Amino acid sequence: MGNSALYEDLIKGYDKQLDHSGVSGERLAKRLHALSEIGYTEPGGIKRPGLSNEEKQAKQLVRSWMEEAGLSVREDGAGNVFGSLPGRSAGPAIASGSHVDSVPNGGNFDGPLGVLSALEVVEAWKSVGFVPEKPYEVVIFTDEEGSRFNSGLTGSRAMTGDITEQEMNQLRDYNGEGLEQVLDTYGSSLDGFRKSVRNLSELELFAEVHIEQGKKLEQENQPVGIVSGIAGPAWMEVKFSGQAGHAGNTPMIGRTDSLVAAGEFVSRLPQLPPAISETAVATVGKLDVSPNGINVIPEQVVLHVDARDIHKEPRDMLVERIRSLAEEVADKHGVSVSLQQNTSITPVPIAEELQQEIAAVLEEQGIVPVRIPSGAGHDAMIVGRHIPVAMLFVRSKDGISHNPKEWSSLSDCVHGVHALKAFIESRMAKS
Amino acid sequence: MGNSALYEDLIKGYDKQLDHSGVSGERLAKRLHALSEIGYTEPGGIKRPGLSNEEKQAKQLVRSWMEEAGLSVREDGAGNVFGSLPGRSAGPAIASGSHVDSVPNGGNFDGPLGVLSALEVVEAWKSVGFVPEKPYEVVIFTDEEGSRFNSGLTGSRAMTGDITEQEMNQLRDYNGEGLEQVLDTYGSSLDGFRKSVRNLSELELFAEVHIEQGKKLEQENQPVGIVSGIAGPAWMEVKFSGQAGHAGNTPMIGRTDSLVAAGEFVSRLPQLPPAISETAVATVGKLDVSPNGINVIPEQVVLHVDARDIHKEPRDMLVERIRSLAEEVADKHGVSVSLQQNTSITPVPIAEELQQEIAAVLEEQGIVPVRIPSGAGHDAMIVGRHIPVAMLFVRSKDGISHNPKEWSSLSDCVHGVHALKAFIESRMAKS
Repeated sequence: MGNSALYEDLIKGYDKQLDHSGVSGERLAKRLHALSEIGYTEPGGIKRPGLSNEEKQAKQLVRSWMEEAGLSVREDGAGNVFGSLPGRSAGPAIASGSHVDSVPNGGNFDGPLGVLSALEVVEAWKSVGFVPEKPYEVVIFTDEEGSRFNSGLTGSRAMTGDITEQEMNQLRDYNGEGLEQVLDTYGSSLDGFRKSVRNLSELELFAEVHIEQGKKLEQENQPVGIVSGIAGPAWMEVKFSGQAGHAGNTPMIGRTDSLVAAGEFVSRLPQLPPAISETAVATVGKLDVSPNGINVIPEQVVLHVDARDIHKEPRDMLVERIRSLAEEVADKHGVSVSLQQNTSITPVPIAEELQQEIAAVLEEQGIVPVRIPSGAGHDAMIVGRHIPVAMLFVRSKDGISHNPKEWSSLSDCVHGVHALKAFIESRMAKS
Repeated sequence: MGNSALYEDLIKGYDKQLDHSGVSGERLAKRLHALSEIGYTEPGGIKRPGLSNEEKQAKQLVRSWMEEAGLSVREDGAGNVFGSLPGRSAGPAIASGSHVDSVPNGGNFDGPLGVLSALEVVEAWKSVGFVPEKPYEVVIFTDEEGSRFNSGLTGSRAMTGDITEQEMNQLRDYNGEGLEQVLDTYGSSLDGFRKSVRNLSELELFAEVHIEQGKKLEQENQPVGIVSGIAGPAWMEVKFSGQAGHAGNTPMIGRTDSLVAAGEFVSRLPQLPPAISETAVATVGKLDVSPNGINVIPEQVVLHVDARDIHKEPRDMLVERIRSLAEEVADKHGVSVSLQQNTSITPVPIAEELQQEIAAVLEEQGIVPVRIPSGAGHDAMIVGRHIPVAMLFVRSKDGISHNPKEWSSLSDCVHGVHALKAFIESRMAKS
């Protein structure tokens, strides 16, 4: 059983010169490999849903490494794991980490790399005898991916207090079980979950390393990049309604074909984001035609727009322009349109000062600093609503994620560890 | 039980002055009503699938009227019914009729009106003592709609020999039964079905009265119109393939979004038919996106184009331009495209001479002749591949068909009978 080739594949092309300042590529590879054996499913995917036995096992394994590294480990009622290292002085801690749950047929890097990178910083400090100025925490957040409850970011939202009582009551997992029952099976309780809200003044900064899930670093040929902001998605449902009719018997003149209107909308949509910002994106991923018969003029088209930007103002402007485009196109084709905004997550900016600090650290490592907006949500997006956050992206092959093909070379991963470590050391040095 | 209001609704607004030359609106209304009670389903639809008990009952009822009217009736092995009236001289017959089967929740006019109009011509001749010069036949074709085998035009194709042995073997009905078993239950046999192919030199012309299933006559405010040709549909499957990606993490630049290409194709398609002919139409009725997830850039779009015209040459030109548009759009958006033509039915032209003869007949009735292409297929389309055909459309309310709301006023129906009768008499007078 198991993902026997992962360690071999990682170590094969590794640039051993990256083993310095206490960082060990071999240790990181062995740990990525060990995690890959928990929830391994044929033919090569990972299945570790949030609050499952597999996620719990993965956390226990990482906890054991944390303890070996000298951290004081505690788990809160939401299943979040915090491994603490005291600093020379007291005060708010700098934290780093990610998650160890996965989507149903996931890969080996999305989540684990962030947790193990944060831990590798501690290992490196330990091996060179470095004691940080401020307290440091390695964090594993519970259920980031959302495959358990069709929701997600559960652990980080529990910690920040961003889950309402109403949501706690409404969550149902893939077995139809509520949060209380799931927590009970896991070994916690709803009350414990409620009590996992932290006093966030205990934390000065949260830094997360994550695979890019995009191709920018590949294009720029750099191992690590700076996340410039985390885009908040706005999801809109757009419904175009026209009149059905026989495709043969209805003359072209006088038709009100909802799909012709929708088609123009979809084809003109890509012009909107570049007019607003370099980081804005808009996508129609889902579109359904009704009645969807070969010889029937479509009566109705329901489509979903996903619009994102890393700043709220341009994102909201994009949403407004999308609305105008839908109305203009509907008007032109004589169909009616209704537009409903279902989701709107506020984008999380990353302070320019922190980005510059990471850029300096990367340049010292000989890496050209590339800034990349994060289109996907991350635990740092949740934490970033409350305290400063920073994120580092590690190059991912072909931009593939949520898939067994997910891949970052060990050299790129270790570049990420060095960058994280140097950035945290730089932050530790600031008062 | 039954459709108790149909007769009342028909007779209510009837213009009794149309009862002349032996034609009776009341008889036609009573017969439409009587047929509406066979296969009546709540709340008002008709269900008479081809080769069902209901279709058989409907045929038996019409046969009894044919015999009362003095026709010699025979049924072939495909269930087609022919009622023959001898002419003053021998030679090829003029035939008229349609079908009595229906779609699953059909109306009362699509099919029955054509059969009863053809029969009403005989009734009128009988009551005034007119004996036609040439033999005349009233025809009921089996299973026109295709709800039995998901195919259709079965009876007319059996008569013309347009069903291959392969198709006979492959047909499966809604119960999974093959043609042989269905015919056996019906009271015929596969051998009888094969023998239903007729020597078509026995027929000089087939004329079909049918409801318009469109709104042209309503717009022109005329009760009856001339079918200028029967459009043959060409069905094409167009597949646009791009690259999937995360809707948030993939920059706008460099995307190959199959739906953006498909959207442009669909929105530009309506410009093609008017540039080719007044009668050409093109429709995308069915479109499916894959993977169809809100936050995933669509990897593939498969859509179906229905392109029609009443002449083969412009229809084929339209198909070529559709192909070019698909290739142009794919090229522009960097996606690949494949185009496959699944169906191509040759359009059936209607001789200009016959159209002019109908126009003259309509003008004599004070009707402005309106020429209308038939976008839908009819038994006349099949027969018209082999011998001359003509078609008359009767105005249908809101263009609705294949629906319990199907409606033509009795006055319009009787106008249709007079036009058919006068046209056939005119043809009878020609050598």
